[in-house]
Amino acid sequence: MAVATRPDRCISWWPRPSSTDVSFSVPFVVRFGEVDAAGVVYFARIFDYAHRAYEDLLVAMGLPLGRILADDGWGMPLVHAEADFSRPMRLGESLIVDVSIAELAERRVSFAFAIRDAEGTTRATVRCDHAFVDMATFRGRSAPSDFVEAAHRLGL
Amino acid sequence: MAVATRPDRCISWWPRPSSTDVSFSVPFVVRFGEVDAAGVVYFARIFDYAHRAYEDLLVAMGLPLGRILADDGWGMPLVHAEADFSRPMRLGESLIVDVSIAELAERRVSFAFAIRDAEGTTRATVRCDHAFVDMATFRGRSAPSDFVEAAHRLGL
Amino acid sequence: MAVATRPDRCISWWPRPSSTDVSFSVPFVVRFGEVDAAGVVYFARIFDYAHRAYEDLLVAMGLPLGRILADDGWGMPLVHAEADFSRPMRLGESLIVDVSIAELAERRVSFAFAIRDAEGTTRATVRCDHAFVDMATFRGRSAPSDFVEAAHRLGL
Amino acid sequence: MAVATRPDRCISWWPRPSSTDVSFSVPFVVRFGEVDAAGVVYFARIFDYAHRAYEDLLVAMGLPLGRILADDGWGMPLVHAEADFSRPMRLGESLIVDVSIAELAERRVSFAFAIRDAEGTTRATVRCDHAFVDMATFRGRSAPSDFVEAAHRLGL
Repeated sequence: MAVATRPDRCISWWPRPSSTDVSFSVPFVVRFGEVDAAGVVYFARIFDYAHRAYEDLLVAMGLPLGRILADDGWGMPLVHAEADFSRPMRLGESLIVDVSIAELAERRVSFAFAIRDAEGTTRATVRCDHAFVDMATFRGRSAPSDFVEAAHRLGL
Repeated sequence: MAVATRPDRCISWWPRPSSTDVSFSVPFVVRFGEVDAAGVVYFARIFDYAHRAYEDLLVAMGLPLGRILADDGWGMPLVHAEADFSRPMRLGESLIVDVSIAELAERRVSFAFAIRDAEGTTRATVRCDHAFVDMATFRGRSAPSDFVEAAHRLGL
Repeated sequence: MAVATRPDRCISWWPRPSSTDVSFSVPFVVRFGEVDAAGVVYFARIFDYAHRAYEDLLVAMGLPLGRILADDGWGMPLVHAEADFSRPMRLGESLIVDVSIAELAERRVSFAFAIRDAEGTTRATVRCDHAFVDMATFRGRSAPSDFVEAAHRLGL
Repeated sequence: MAVATRPDRCISWWPRPSSTDVSFSVPFVVRFGEVDAAGVVYFARIFDYAHRAYEDLLVAMGLPLGRILADDGWGMPLVHAEADFSRPMRLGESLIVDVSIAELAERRVSFAFAIRDAEGTTRATVRCDHAFVDMATFRGRSAPSDFVEAAHRLGL
């Protein structure tokens, strides 16, 4: 991946998009309200596409975001997000977000997203870095075992 | 390997229980970015849910919105929209939009939307009124035969 | 006003847009991300414009929305919203929302919004009806005196 | 009578304290619909804040985005965007975006955005990289003289 990673002690790491990587795929359709005056998806909406796939991945991990938010033990606020926009996305297109865990470090986790069409052409890539925090103190903490186990269970 | 996921666009025809009307059903999941500081879906997003179902209905009618927009013959701008909010929608809920044509008049068409959960409880209803216009003059015109025929073909 | 009102026992009522009405004006600029593939403001964003003016009005009333939400005494959820779209709004336009209280009834309040340009041409009108509720029971209640007094103080 | 209100677009020139850079400052208020279920601004909305400041900067440069889009000569599509989120932004807060040109290269331009409160505490930083393209071919081209001259004229 081209994005610079902020090194930390890596527990696990999967290079993408190799043939052995594990990702989670979420299809979507480009909606009218997401397309801008230039006729292509407005860039901030692309971060929405990524976040929706992240929400679905958390559900698959047995850790829906609503439950994490309601839980007063730990949280994982977003600390950094970035995207590279390769090719425009247009109204009505059926596309796919592949999401995977790019890096699971002691105190943070990075999700990588590739948005592609059915032919496999990448339209955009997104990376979101989250820090694990203790919700009582809002200080950094190590990755919760619930999270780590769920990631391993899915082979992520 | 792609982990199976839930579809963003899985459409079905569904006779509405209370009548002989035919409606078109579009499932969706309430997303994090759609929920407001009060913990429920922000009202303006509910109009988005309706519009997305309208876009899917137009695709099923063989008249995708992108093609209507690109066509310089006719258009159907929105002239009125309204919604009644019965019960809150919360993060992560799986809901359904039922969309039907409430009225097809000489120069306008009204779409009715009911947003409900799997148990059939209505969360909100939306109505959107569109006028048929000639794109060259932006004056009102009668309903295009393409539109009327597609509506009849689907039994709407 | 053309919209049908749901009759209730009226405490106060000001017809709009007469010369004696009191309204609150909030200027704004049409943003790139608010404009759709047809080159005009996407309809659901117009409800956002109204809501932002409502938020500013509440601040002027000394009742910022954040404080109402944090207060466990009362709330005013939206029960109905509607809009008439008269003329398109385009990227970069400087427009104004005039907001006023259209009706303050025993258990509900309606806000009326007119979105216009500097020349006074109306682009859209919006109406939002809120119910006063007790937050402990989520049942209807009479208009809180804080709210009624602030409305009177501003001459709304 | 119109009650006075706070401007949505009140722009000022402001030398950034730490350097001789010139930046452009755009105040804004955090809106209800921008805050998520966790009670803070949803991350994708932060990119909207940056983009709105970029739109205002282009207006100040005499190159409003609508005119660039309508012009068939050149364009400047976004190729990369990233943000670091330092501290949460909450409903009703009055904040400021400082925007400046971080780098003007032969074929691309980078805008830097700092979102801060009135006390100067940074909440988030954003960077957006745009490529200059010829609209006929959509191939890269050198920075248009209009753009370069306007940037120099403003001391950016």
